[in-house]
Amino acid sequence: MSDNRITFLIQCADSKGIIAKVTTFFYEEGFNILTCQQFTDNVQDAYFMRVSLDARDLTYSREELASKFDEVALSLKLEWRVYYSEDKQNVAVLASKTSHCVFDLLEKHSEGMLNCHIPLIISNHQDVKYVADQFNIPFYHLPVTADNWTEQQQEIKRLLEFHKVDLVVLARFMRILSSDFINAYQRKIINIHHAFLPAFQGANPYRRAYERGVKMIGATAHYATDDLDEGPIIEQDVERVSHASSPAGLTQIGSDIERKVLSKAVKFHLDHRIIVTGNRTIVFPETEG
Amino acid sequence: MSDNRITFLIQCADSKGIIAKVTTFFYEEGFNILTCQQFTDNVQDAYFMRVSLDARDLTYSREELASKFDEVALSLKLEWRVYYSEDKQNVAVLASKTSHCVFDLLEKHSEGMLNCHIPLIISNHQDVKYVADQFNIPFYHLPVTADNWTEQQQEIKRLLEFHKVDLVVLARFMRILSSDFINAYQRKIINIHHAFLPAFQGANPYRRAYERGVKMIGATAHYATDDLDEGPIIEQDVERVSHASSPAGLTQIGSDIERKVLSKAVKFHLDHRIIVTGNRTIVFPETEG
Amino acid sequence: MSDNRITFLIQCADSKGIIAKVTTFFYEEGFNILTCQQFTDNVQDAYFMRVSLDARDLTYSREELASKFDEVALSLKLEWRVYYSEDKQNVAVLASKTSHCVFDLLEKHSEGMLNCHIPLIISNHQDVKYVADQFNIPFYHLPVTADNWTEQQQEIKRLLEFHKVDLVVLARFMRILSSDFINAYQRKIINIHHAFLPAFQGANPYRRAYERGVKMIGATAHYATDDLDEGPIIEQDVERVSHASSPAGLTQIGSDIERKVLSKAVKFHLDHRIIVTGNRTIVFPETEG
Amino acid sequence: MSDNRITFLIQCADSKGIIAKVTTFFYEEGFNILTCQQFTDNVQDAYFMRVSLDARDLTYSREELASKFDEVALSLKLEWRVYYSEDKQNVAVLASKTSHCVFDLLEKHSEGMLNCHIPLIISNHQDVKYVADQFNIPFYHLPVTADNWTEQQQEIKRLLEFHKVDLVVLARFMRILSSDFINAYQRKIINIHHAFLPAFQGANPYRRAYERGVKMIGATAHYATDDLDEGPIIEQDVERVSHASSPAGLTQIGSDIERKVLSKAVKFHLDHRIIVTGNRTIVFPETEG
Repeated sequence: MSDNRITFLIQCADSKGIIAKVTTFFYEEGFNILTCQQFTDNVQDAYFMRVSLDARDLTYSREELASKFDEVALSLKLEWRVYYSEDKQNVAVLASKTSHCVFDLLEKHSEGMLNCHIPLIISNHQDVKYVADQFNIPFYHLPVTADNWTEQQQEIKRLLEFHKVDLVVLARFMRILSSDFINAYQRKIINIHHAFLPAFQGANPYRRAYERGVKMIGATAHYATDDLDEGPIIEQDVERVSHASSPAGLTQIGSDIERKVLSKAVKFHLDHRIIVTGNRTIVFPETEG
Repeated sequence: MSDNRITFLIQCADSKGIIAKVTTFFYEEGFNILTCQQFTDNVQDAYFMRVSLDARDLTYSREELASKFDEVALSLKLEWRVYYSEDKQNVAVLASKTSHCVFDLLEKHSEGMLNCHIPLIISNHQDVKYVADQFNIPFYHLPVTADNWTEQQQEIKRLLEFHKVDLVVLARFMRILSSDFINAYQRKIINIHHAFLPAFQGANPYRRAYERGVKMIGATAHYATDDLDEGPIIEQDVERVSHASSPAGLTQIGSDIERKVLSKAVKFHLDHRIIVTGNRTIVFPETEG
Repeated sequence: MSDNRITFLIQCADSKGIIAKVTTFFYEEGFNILTCQQFTDNVQDAYFMRVSLDARDLTYSREELASKFDEVALSLKLEWRVYYSEDKQNVAVLASKTSHCVFDLLEKHSEGMLNCHIPLIISNHQDVKYVADQFNIPFYHLPVTADNWTEQQQEIKRLLEFHKVDLVVLARFMRILSSDFINAYQRKIINIHHAFLPAFQGANPYRRAYERGVKMIGATAHYATDDLDEGPIIEQDVERVSHASSPAGLTQIGSDIERKVLSKAVKFHLDHRIIVTGNRTIVFPETEG
Repeated sequence: MSDNRITFLIQCADSKGIIAKVTTFFYEEGFNILTCQQFTDNVQDAYFMRVSLDARDLTYSREELASKFDEVALSLKLEWRVYYSEDKQNVAVLASKTSHCVFDLLEKHSEGMLNCHIPLIISNHQDVKYVADQFNIPFYHLPVTADNWTEQQQEIKRLLEFHKVDLVVLARFMRILSSDFINAYQRKIINIHHAFLPAFQGANPYRRAYERGVKMIGATAHYATDDLDEGPIIEQDVERVSHASSPAGLTQIGSDIERKVLSKAVKFHLDHRIIVTGNRTIVFPETEG
């Protein structure tokens, strides 16, 4: 998606005619609809829509488009957001000691697969500094002691604000962020949980997976919420394992799942494919080349 | 999908406004659009659409709906078909000696997962008669000799016509149907090929997979065409294997893939999720409960 | 594995020379070792072994083999069991209302893939009687009321004893067996849990999976223990799902995983591939054709 | 596997007593057998064995161990090789323009997951130089013209010899190596083929996969042989795709499979888990922590 797109994310109560009216609006404004995806949740009686347009068809200002669409939205009682792919988002990566997720994000970024800037990496340890250095990303070391976590969170916040960060990625960041922090970045913090949630919530899931003798292990990327490990799930994956895998072996297999799942979730977010509803996510599948 | 639906499958060259005009038509005719799925093929510049409607909203005759929609279709140059879920299709199963695919189809049918009638099973052997008997499906044994294959195909055709068969499923049927036969049932014959096509086309794929030492084996369901093993692929799946699997072991693992893949492909067809374009299929994913 | 095998399952504390001494014993007794699989659990410092022999090499009585091997076992402090593949086990299937697992077991059995007899199916409902009838398996209907569950369990036990049942398969049997019952059949009851344990233990896992918006669902086959849903896991599998799957859709996808996982677990048990240690299973992979 | 191990790879015709005699030898020499894996190929009547020992138990010289084991080997007609994990192998990476496989190898190497040195990267282009620089690996740019391929292969050979290279990894290297070159490094060149072989051998497999409308794509790592794309397969994997993936989308999905499959194959080789027999590989599964 190097090309120039406008993406609308829309949600509302289900009723007749929404798709007709929305698509007619875009047609009459001269847009070519590149993709139009809908989902009707019959359990909640809710309707979700993602429309992606060719930005070259926009012949007037963004403000004008917003105000015109708002008329449709008001009459149909739509909640909506619009995103322009040429506005690259700023992504901050928070890490602790393990490097695999950081590596994968920076590598995919450097190969052009994540449409964003990564202005900084923050860590409470020095271990992944060399990865940041390799990719020439500014690295901030904010060591955390028994006493300074509140102040260091303030410092992180200051850095995020200074760098105008749109998305915070917790790439195996092992500190628990305060409610205040999380609420300031609602649905803008993606965490990777090193387990196939809701199994093995909390610490040491691979050890516990070993003790329980599970035959598959997995990882889960989700939006961070106040309620630890309980935020809306974005992506999950698993790998088959056996009795023969030690806790250390499971950790290694798990690392490969974690990096893959986290990078996918970040990409879905950056491509504006996700709508959160209650504690669930609607993730519209990729259909563009 | 026990409920009552009308499904339109539409294809045309891509141009602005199609979705707006099509959905506006259904809205103005009083329909609640249950699902609306589109796919734009940028390589071929083609547009594909599947619209599913609540049949209870149809307040006039089927003919009237067809003739009204035809006006839209003419102006937009659409190719289209419409299906009513209450018209259960008649499915004939053709089998030879192995029973696993027949079992799976009849079982899923008897559990209500395939929206069709199965008026008959035809085989050139007696081996699967007991399965047909178990499920109370009329079984026709048409033994094939060196000389009588042409006549037996006539007989099969006669049976299919008598039973008003809409779909022929080749459930590991080991005879090659004539071009005449296949052309009489274009895109109405689904075959299961016991390999992950296009790998190992032709006979004995599991033996050849063993000799080649592959690490995964698979199966492919496709529409039968004149060009053997080359018809549009509907569904595929694979399973991990190892050096430790003998040709017989691979065959057994393969059987479980074959049955699963064939049943899925038949269900996609019966639910009108498939549009064939060139030698490819567009398979719209299941999104209804 | 239609052929005639003798299988030894062995476990002990890890120490030098076990494999040499055990394999030397079989060699000196004139056996061809068909497969010899070991696993050393470094966490528990335990050693597990599965040896499978060609039964045609047994030139004396079973008792003699047992008593000879016992000498080796005593000196090495081995726990061991021996199984003769020609002794087909008797398997009882317990079901409630849903048929998919029963279908899969009976079908695989009738295709010769499960080395056992199935002398009876017991259910607290009539719903799967037609499946039992189809496959000509005696069906016992034991309806359960608020008051009679203790007596009906006695009746089930009586039936199992009468039919000399070696393995009880709970094929979506929805009643909770008493501790007494379970303890009478320790490691001889296989249950299918309709979730990827330990996620969503207990009832309605598909509904809860929907509400949690998970991206994969799965099923778990395990030995039944006193502690519900906590017995040693034998086999698990998952399938990718999306927001688009309703609770009913998830149930259907889940059914296909359940049947596959349960049949696999039963086969592993019947082929004597499983050693239970603590709350884990060692499942030696299939390596014979 | 940071620990110190001795690994024997053994193959021979199947006969009684091999495992007893081999394991008795190691036991009597005072070794603790860490893992002992066997595979009997009943089709070829061949026997394969991998024994891994604790190197701390070696109380005499490597030469002495070799000469002692050779006596056993002669009497049993074994082919065998022995490897010491403390002898790190030298791996050369050959690349062209795409970076994803190079990235993955260097990253896994830098995280300690590949037990080897990587003394150099060679490429016919400059595109991946920045990756080599990032990881501080010497990079050799050997541009290839219509005329100089023979000389440049000589130069590559010279570099490999100078750096005492044990394994050559073709990480999407797009030039065809001469028979002479390949024969000089028999079973020491691992190639990644960007298709699920034997499907879509040759060029542009993702384009052809698109045109054929396949529902899964994959990649294959194999030893390079004279016969292009036909060498013994080491590892394969696939990912589900749909009609919605363009050739470019398939390429991207494929890249993620390629990197994973290639890194796995390289790890299997470095851990001495592979025995080649005919055109197949025996890959003993990982069982150590």
